[in-house]
Amino acid sequence: MGGLLEAFRAKVMEGGWIRKGEHVLAAVSGGVDSVVLLHLLVAVREAYSLTVTAAHLNHGLRGEEAERDEQFVLDYCRRLEVPCFCEKRDVRRYAQVHRLSEEMAARAVRYDFLRRLKRETGADVIATAHHADDQVETVIDHFLRGSGLAGLAGMTVRRGDIVRPLLWATRAEIERYALDHSLAFRVDRSNFDLGFRRNRIRLELIPYLRRYFNPSLREAVLRTSQIAWEVENYLQDRALQVLSEARTRARRGEVVLDLGRLGQQPALIQKYVVIAAFEALGGNRWHLDHDRLERAAQLIREGTSGSLLSLGSGIGMVKSQAQLAIQKMGRLEFCYVVPIGGRVSLPELDLTIDTEVVDRTTYAQQVGLDQRVEFVDLDVMQGELRVRNARPGDRFHPLGASGSKKLSDFFTDAKVPVFERWRTPVLTDERNIIWVCGLRLDDRYKVTEKTQRILKLALGEMISDEE
Amino acid sequence: MGGLLEAFRAKVMEGGWIRKGEHVLAAVSGGVDSVVLLHLLVAVREAYSLTVTAAHLNHGLRGEEAERDEQFVLDYCRRLEVPCFCEKRDVRRYAQVHRLSEEMAARAVRYDFLRRLKRETGADVIATAHHADDQVETVIDHFLRGSGLAGLAGMTVRRGDIVRPLLWATRAEIERYALDHSLAFRVDRSNFDLGFRRNRIRLELIPYLRRYFNPSLREAVLRTSQIAWEVENYLQDRALQVLSEARTRARRGEVVLDLGRLGQQPALIQKYVVIAAFEALGGNRWHLDHDRLERAAQLIREGTSGSLLSLGSGIGMVKSQAQLAIQKMGRLEFCYVVPIGGRVSLPELDLTIDTEVVDRTTYAQQVGLDQRVEFVDLDVMQGELRVRNARPGDRFHPLGASGSKKLSDFFTDAKVPVFERWRTPVLTDERNIIWVCGLRLDDRYKVTEKTQRILKLALGEMISDEE
Repeated sequence: MGGLLEAFRAKVMEGGWIRKGEHVLAAVSGGVDSVVLLHLLVAVREAYSLTVTAAHLNHGLRGEEAERDEQFVLDYCRRLEVPCFCEKRDVRRYAQVHRLSEEMAARAVRYDFLRRLKRETGADVIATAHHADDQVETVIDHFLRGSGLAGLAGMTVRRGDIVRPLLWATRAEIERYALDHSLAFRVDRSNFDLGFRRNRIRLELIPYLRRYFNPSLREAVLRTSQIAWEVENYLQDRALQVLSEARTRARRGEVVLDLGRLGQQPALIQKYVVIAAFEALGGNRWHLDHDRLERAAQLIREGTSGSLLSLGSGIGMVKSQAQLAIQKMGRLEFCYVVPIGGRVSLPELDLTIDTEVVDRTTYAQQVGLDQRVEFVDLDVMQGELRVRNARPGDRFHPLGASGSKKLSDFFTDAKVPVFERWRTPVLTDERNIIWVCGLRLDDRYKVTEKTQRILKLALGEMISDEE
Repeated sequence: MGGLLEAFRAKVMEGGWIRKGEHVLAAVSGGVDSVVLLHLLVAVREAYSLTVTAAHLNHGLRGEEAERDEQFVLDYCRRLEVPCFCEKRDVRRYAQVHRLSEEMAARAVRYDFLRRLKRETGADVIATAHHADDQVETVIDHFLRGSGLAGLAGMTVRRGDIVRPLLWATRAEIERYALDHSLAFRVDRSNFDLGFRRNRIRLELIPYLRRYFNPSLREAVLRTSQIAWEVENYLQDRALQVLSEARTRARRGEVVLDLGRLGQQPALIQKYVVIAAFEALGGNRWHLDHDRLERAAQLIREGTSGSLLSLGSGIGMVKSQAQLAIQKMGRLEFCYVVPIGGRVSLPELDLTIDTEVVDRTTYAQQVGLDQRVEFVDLDVMQGELRVRNARPGDRFHPLGASGSKKLSDFFTDAKVPVFERWRTPVLTDERNIIWVCGLRLDDRYKVTEKTQRILKLALGEMISDEE
């Protein structure tokens, strides 16, 4: 009767979904699925040198019943010699504050709890007990929402810090295992509340579909999920390949792509490249909807230079003559003291600034050769030299201009794209902007015939340790 | 109120779904959709120099009511000055004979009727009145069946000889047009029979899904269809590209691919290449199921040389050392007289055979150099020289063997793949096989010291005029 355990060993452990020596944090509700999952993990714990920890969240929705669930999980874990962390959260309140359904709020609170606990326990991976019937419900749910190819693929076995070691097993197989091993479990009555979308899919829609449309609905939906997963995977791989071929600069917070190369790709691949760049910047691909992607592909094909599009999640894309930049749009707030005759790093931009006191000969040889190098009169400066982000209200006196100008007007006249503005550091003393780095010196700080001491400023790129 | 007509002009006519000067055969049931479709076609008939013909099929299922439908369509067409072909078929009988549901049988009979009529009238294209709500039903239906990515794409606007000029319009828009133009139409009562799968989807499932899961279900499903279509299209394009790069021979009834090139592709693309080859050989991709494709990809990756797989529809694939052949497995029946000193063509195989009487010097110089060239003793031959396909029961006397042998045993011993056997021509006189072309001479016909007249036989490839 060890069918499920054998399959678990073969697929999950030998298949490498969970790796030897890993620390697995298992989410245990006390329901049959998670009870069986924990039992299986413990059964292979020694052979694969796993560390197993359990996590139980009381959603604060079901009063005393939930207290008993918690006690049940604690007792079960004690018997299996698994350390168990329990916590109580007020999901209802969270739902109100964040304007979510209770179902969505419970999900958000749960993953938040699990991720924090993973950090605190130093676990490698979070294991949840989702199984094949959950997958079927998920895929049907996504189909009804119209959430695209990735949605039809459903849940993945292992992605990021989440593993779903039972995703191949049916509910019936899991229940049989519990029976065979005389495992007790708790039944969550809210699983029968038709007010929850998931419950209605499981209890009402699926039985109806099986009866009138396809008795093999589960197999059909899982097949669709598998096909969608394979296609989605292929398209993501293609996109990463194109991304790495077309990427011209690697700097934190931005992906800059060569439009010539990107433009050769079919619109579909362009969209997947945008998704990949969006993810590389920390965006969640699920928040990138179909319409936005269509507009992104359109911008790539037809957009005029300078046009920009927000992708959401504080990430935007802007098209220039020959490049497409996908960047964090948020203003980066930073301010560092710049040593005279030393280096300062700006990790927000992956930039460095070197300063050096130089003589007039060096100045004469180097001035004007490189936008990224500038020279200033050190004796005009007052107080500490600093570098910070450009801020609303900034003014300076551009070299050669008759008077002061708003920095934002300067940017506009110089045709600096919006995102670049937020990524342009300015060098100041305690009163004024000295240098809009890489773009323009302040007239009052320029080297004149009277200058005694000359400071050389050089903008450089931080060496990043990308894979 | 010309909204639908304007859209029809812009999308269908200017978009090129129907082209100027085409002869359109419209399927007209008498229902509101097809009544509106015909009205729109007639409205643009002059401006785009269309020829419009109507076709009405009486399915023989609804007795007198169907007779009245037919009369209604005839009257309507007469008013629009559209020639109309009506025909009656016994769908129920067809369903019994072919063991199909009445729904499926009606579909098969309908397309059979339309295709025949298209040939007879010389029409360019068949137009059906499917609209966006039909598309939604189709995609849901395919999702429930698990019919893969192409299934989720649903119906296409124009593919092959079918155009669906209203696929973008909603049922409501079509009904409004009928109302605005005071168009009468017939209501088919069988549209309300829940015994038909389609009706249940429309009347029961969709309203339920809209109520409990997604009021914007139509938009969600159409979005999925659009995404699936774009992805499917891209994958088909990639496959055709790989197919043309990897194809080593172009011969009717077979696609031979270089395994080295094909092997570099991801499994997903390999599957789409198999689909494309299957289609190129006249197979219907809908008959290629997911399991079969999985096995095809497995054969490409891991199959041993000589292993073969039937893809259905009389098409199979066989792996050899360095090639993958996808071929019609059916036996090709042919028999041609071979002129002495001339050429015969075998269009079934895209092969030619040249014969020439040569002297002993030529013989001595050329014998044994090329498997595709053979020499026989012309005086041993009796009666006409012929070339035909290998047949069951064939025997011959292989060169060097002590006696006669069954041709099938010879093929087996020579490790000739099954499909190649059916594609190997044999040369005969009126009694015996003389040459199993390209493989082995019959011992009795070999050139000896006594030979007076030598006939040279040379197998060659027909120049094919492929695009």
